[in-house]
This record gives sequence, structure tokens and C-alpha cells, in this order.
Amino acid sequence: MEKNIAVIWGDCSSPEIVKQTIRVLDKVAEKYGHTFHYTDAAMGGEAIDKYGDPLPQHELDKCLAADSVLLGAVGGPKWEGLPGEQRPEKGLLRLRAGMGLYSNNRPAKIWPQLAPASPLKPEIVAQGIDFIIVRELIGGVYFGNHETHTLASGEKQAIDSMPYAEHEIERIGRIGFETARKRRKKLCCVDKANVLDTSRLWRSVMHRLQAEYPDVEYSEMFVDNCAMQIVKNPAQFDVIVTENMFGDILSDEASMITGSIGMIPSSSLGDGTRGLYEPIHGSAPDIAGKDIVNPTACILSAAMMLRYSFGMAEEADAIETAVNKVLDKGLRTADNMSEGCTCLGCTAMGDAILAEI
Amino acid sequence: MEKNIAVIWGDCSSPEIVKQTIRVLDKVAEKYGHTFHYTDAAMGGEAIDKYGDPLPQHELDKCLAADSVLLGAVGGPKWEGLPGEQRPEKGLLRLRAGMGLYSNNRPAKIWPQLAPASPLKPEIVAQGIDFIIVRELIGGVYFGNHETHTLASGEKQAIDSMPYAEHEIERIGRIGFETARKRRKKLCCVDKANVLDTSRLWRSVMHRLQAEYPDVEYSEMFVDNCAMQIVKNPAQFDVIVTENMFGDILSDEASMITGSIGMIPSSSLGDGTRGLYEPIHGSAPDIAGKDIVNPTACILSAAMMLRYSFGMAEEADAIETAVNKVLDKGLRTADNMSEGCTCLGCTAMGDAILAEI
Ligand SMILES: CC(C)[C@H](C(=O)O)[C@@H](O)C(=O)O
Ligand SMILES: CC(C)[C@H](C(=O)O)[C@@H](O)C(=O)O
Repeated sequence: MEKNIAVIWGDCSSPEIVKQTIRVLDKVAEKYGHTFHYTDAAMGGEAIDKYGDPLPQHELDKCLAADSVLLGAVGGPKWEGLPGEQRPEKGLLRLRAGMGLYSNNRPAKIWPQLAPASPLKPEIVAQGIDFIIVRELIGGVYFGNHETHTLASGEKQAIDSMPYAEHEIERIGRIGFETARKRRKKLCCVDKANVLDTSRLWRSVMHRLQAEYPDVEYSEMFVDNCAMQIVKNPAQFDVIVTENMFGDILSDEASMITGSIGMIPSSSLGDGTRGLYEPIHGSAPDIAGKDIVNPTACILSAAMMLRYSFGMAEEADAIETAVNKVLDKGLRTADNMSEGCTCLGCTAMGDAILAEI
Repeated sequence: MEKNIAVIWGDCSSPEIVKQTIRVLDKVAEKYGHTFHYTDAAMGGEAIDKYGDPLPQHELDKCLAADSVLLGAVGGPKWEGLPGEQRPEKGLLRLRAGMGLYSNNRPAKIWPQLAPASPLKPEIVAQGIDFIIVRELIGGVYFGNHETHTLASGEKQAIDSMPYAEHEIERIGRIGFETARKRRKKLCCVDKANVLDTSRLWRSVMHRLQAEYPDVEYSEMFVDNCAMQIVKNPAQFDVIVTENMFGDILSDEASMITGSIGMIPSSSLGDGTRGLYEPIHGSAPDIAGKDIVNPTACILSAAMMLRYSFGMAEEADAIETAVNKVLDKGLRTADNMSEGCTCLGCTAMGDAILAEI
């Protein structure tokens, strides 16, 4: 197969992980007889530096023209003082919206080899941590109206609004049920229905969908309770579906309990097969240029791209198996080091994974 | 001293813990020569059953007439099907607003005797968990406009709005700084300033206050990152100040890492000394009537009331020291049991704490 991949190299240490990922993709292409064409697209800090805009239309167009988009991570201290509209994150939000990527899929899965790195007690880890947070990505308070005005009293007031329409809930709710159906068939909808109208609308739509998925065990949980349960008993979860902001908070918490955020990929999809694939970690400015950043999450994001956007399951398996073998051999990057393991730099970790494909 | 305390007995297993708490208060009164007058006030499920309203004005008035309010916990399956306005939680929200309680103080502190119950690894617990979340309690999305309407397309849309005015931020920000000043002098403001206008207004107000508290080390953190850091490295925190919804989520997560939510009290205060004191746990419907619920968080909430509303520091110390001694003796309720300890029921735990005062 021939595929066009838009590549957003990202900021700070991000180009280092993207570089290793492209080497891995090329190896897969060679081995399985595919051709991947890469088009560089600028977003985030790089785009601000080049164009004074975190996502100019011509760069978004490159992403829309591709079969899928690979992203490292954007942002860094250099751009932190800028006003809201010109910050790197704004480019990411506009990319998600511009590509219509309403479904963000964040797996929280423990690699047995890295289990000791989890901040949770071994007894809890032993019960298994393997769930997915399906986060709505282009609605809610992220994309509602934001305004700051001066009240009659002379003081300022800011208002952020959190809108959700039924169709926005239905399409992500469906992804939740479909995802659960392919796994252990348990879906938990997380919200704050005791306070929010949007949550109550979520529930009513979810109840309608529930009738279509009688094989999926459906439950509901308040977001505050969920923040507790992820720490107390993560084994109870299979698939969590939730709105944008709650998904942001809970998926970060969930990634932390795996103990290895340098290993967690993510996919963002819309209605078609074109997606955006990125590690969940940030651009790690403090270690940029040192060739020590862990490229694995980005490489695993590419595996997700092969699986979900290109239908290349075998190829995706090949990458994931390679990562597993590398871990079995005791090879680690600095962020995951433990006694008796060998510490590799970013390029050397790329080499090690390549060697197993 | 003579003090009037409004007592909200609460629902399900709540009256059992309130009963033990009043016994403890009476013992303190006897020992230190105070008189506490109690007035029952109905809120939550009890008020719904009696008056068809989770907080009728006459019950709120009793709370406003008192020197302080002691609350167990409200809610339960019986009232879950009711529409939003008639649910027990609505009574709680109206009580907070009606009493002007903008500052909710939630300590996350590990009792050394209960450290093994934390879901976190011993290495992390050993670094110490002792921080306070100062949560804004009567603003933000909890009290903004909530609406659900039908769009031209025929589908429904819900919108929740999250407003904050400068004076609302300033008064809670000040509590944050003052609280930090009395402790280890570190304040972290948690928000989502890369997305929300309200968060950016929070930051601008906090920066202004910062100038008045040069002795406090001030920092800022995004809420998603904070959800990770609480699990990864809780020892870094002293005082966290944050808006209502983030505070709800983070304080529940923080309470869970202590491993003993049956031990965590909370205070809610406004401008005067009248406050609302309640355990952070719920009404535990599943164990109601069995005399096995842990009364300690409610008893410790009463201690906070003595300290913060009545200026009775010695009396508060007496209760906290008693709890500590009871734990030292290996006495536990079922929720905190571990090997070698003695399991007590609710009344017996009340007896044990009383005996140490
Ligand atoms: C950078 C930020 C706007 C973004 C978000 O909140 O969505 C990030 O935290 C994420 O989760 O991808
Ligand atoms: C019951 C609910 C409305 C309440 C809240 O969200 O404030 C509770 O979770 C709490 O934290 O006291």
C-alpha cells in the first residue's frame, strides 16, 4: 500500500522521537512492501517561529490532504509568555477541530516489565491495569465561548461556557460502546450529572445508545469518584467514555499510574480513517538535544496509526512485539531505568526496536 | 463559652456518625466548661422526605442563626431518581451558597498508623503526604447558568457556564496565601490557563496577591498535570488553591491516596467565623444501620469546628490527640482494618475516642 503521512516534528525534544519513529515506519514499509510518503507540516512552536501563527491554514491543509498525521509534542518555555491565541497549544486545539477529531483514545495499560515503576502498590498493580479512556475531543469547555468583560462594579468577570449537543455526545458515546465491545465489554460513562446540564444530556443520550448495545455492561460514575477509583482500584475499568475536560484530567491521572508515561501512545479520530497520532507526554524541554528522550510512545503511536488508519494490523503487531522484546531484554531509556537494566539513549532505543522488526 | 450548633444528621449511615460526634462534643464541653446547644436542621434526603425540598428556607435559617453547623453526609439511592432541583446534593449546594461559604478546606494528610492502607507505594508515602486543598466553593460552573434548549436542527443542546469575578478569586486566593503562611509557605494555584478565560483571570488576580505575600513560594500548575503529580509525588505540595470543579476532583483524588477516607474532615468557611463542618466521605448507604461506619472523620470535623469557628484550639487538640491514641492502640473500624488490629463498630469507636479525652 502507498500512504501519505503528514509529519509534525514538534518542539524541544520532540524531533528526536519523531526521527526514530520514521526510521521504524520505514523499516515496516520495507519489510511489508508498503510505501510511506512523508510531508512535513508545522504546528505549535515551530509554526509560531516560522509564520507567527501556531497553525496556519496551509499547514492544516497539508494534514487534511494526508492519509494520517503523526505528531511528536508541541510547546516549550520559549512560547509560554505569548497571548492565548498565539500559543502552541492553540495550534493543537485548532488541528483537532480542523480535522474533526472528536474521539481521543488513550490507553492506560501497564507493561509487565515496567510494573515496578508504577506509583501504586504492587498488590493493586497485580490486579491488572488495562483500560482505555475515550475522551471527547472537540466539544465542551475547550470549544465553547470564552469571554472576559468588566462588570458594572468595575471588576472583571470571565465566563467559559461548556456546550454539548446531542449529536456530539452520540458519536463519541458510540465509539465508547464499540470500543468496549471489542474488549472486555464494560463501559463506564464519567460525568458530573449531579451538577451539570451537559452531563444530564450525556446520560440521556447514553441511555438511548445502551439499548443498541445490550452485550455491553454499562455504568455511570461521577468524575470526583472516578478520580478516586483510578487510584484505588484501576482493575475495575475496561473503557471509560467522558467529555473533553474530564477526559483531560482523568487520562493524565490514568497514564501516571502505569508508571511510564514515556510509553503511552494516543490516537484521535473522526468519522473517516484519517487520524492524528501522538504520544501523551509533552515536549520535554529540559532534556532536548541530549538524545536521551524515550521515543517509544511516539513509535507506538505510529503502530496505532498503522492499525486504525491504514488497517495494517500485522504491521502494528510487529512494532508492539518489537517494543515488548526490547523491554524483555532489559533495555530502557533513562525515564524508565531500574536496577539490572541497560540504559539507552533515544537513537539507541530506536536502533533496538528496529532490530526486532 | 456557650455555643449554638446546628446539626444536620444526614442520610443513611450518617446519623450514626453524628451521634458519636455529639457524644464527643459533650465530653469536651464537660471537661472544658463549655455549653453546646444543638438545633436539628434538616437538609438532603431527610428534608426531601419531610418537606419535599432538600433545603427549605426555615432549615437554612436555623443554620444561619447558629454559631456553626455540623453535618454528616447526605444522599442515597432512595432519592437518586428525583429531578435535579429536588435532589439531596442540591440542598448541600444551596446551604453552601446560602451561608456564603466560599472556602472549602480539605486536608490530605496521612496518619502514620494508617500508612499501609495508602494505595501508593511505601517509598512515595514515606516522603510524606501532608497538604491542603483550598477549594473555591460557591462559584464557577457549580453556580453558573445551566440551560438545555432545542437547536434549529431539532436536537437538544445543553450549556453549563463557568463564571468567576475578580472578587471571588481574590477572597479565596487570600485564604490560599494565608493558609500557606501558617504552614510550610508553599502555595500552588491549579488551573487550565492554556484553555480557560476564568483560569487566566485567576492567574492575574493571584499575581496581584503574590506581591502581598513575598514570604510564600508561589507556583502554578495545570489541572491535568496536578492529577498526575498527586499520585507521583504528593510530598511536593503544601497548599493547593483552585476553583470549585477542579477542587472537587483533585480533593477526592488526594483523599484517596491517604488510604483512609473515613478519617478526613473538612471545613467550609466564609467571611465570618460561622462554618460548615463535614466528613469528606459520603453517606455509605450500603452499611447503614449496622453500627460499623467509621465516625472518625465526623468527629475530626467537630474538632475543626472548635478550632476554626470557636477558637478552641486546646479542645480541638484534645480530640485529635484522642484519635491518635486510639490508632496507636491498634483500634480500627472495618474500613481501616489491618492485621493485628482490633475491629470496632461505630459506637465502640466513639467510646474509645471518648475514653481518651
Ligand atoms: C495542551 C493542552 C491544551 C492539551 C489539552 O488539554 O487537551 C493537553 O493537555 C492534552 O491533553 O493533549
Ligand atoms: C455532592 C456534590 C454536589 C458535592 C460537590 O461536587 O461539591 C460533593 O462531591 C462534594 O465534593 O462535596
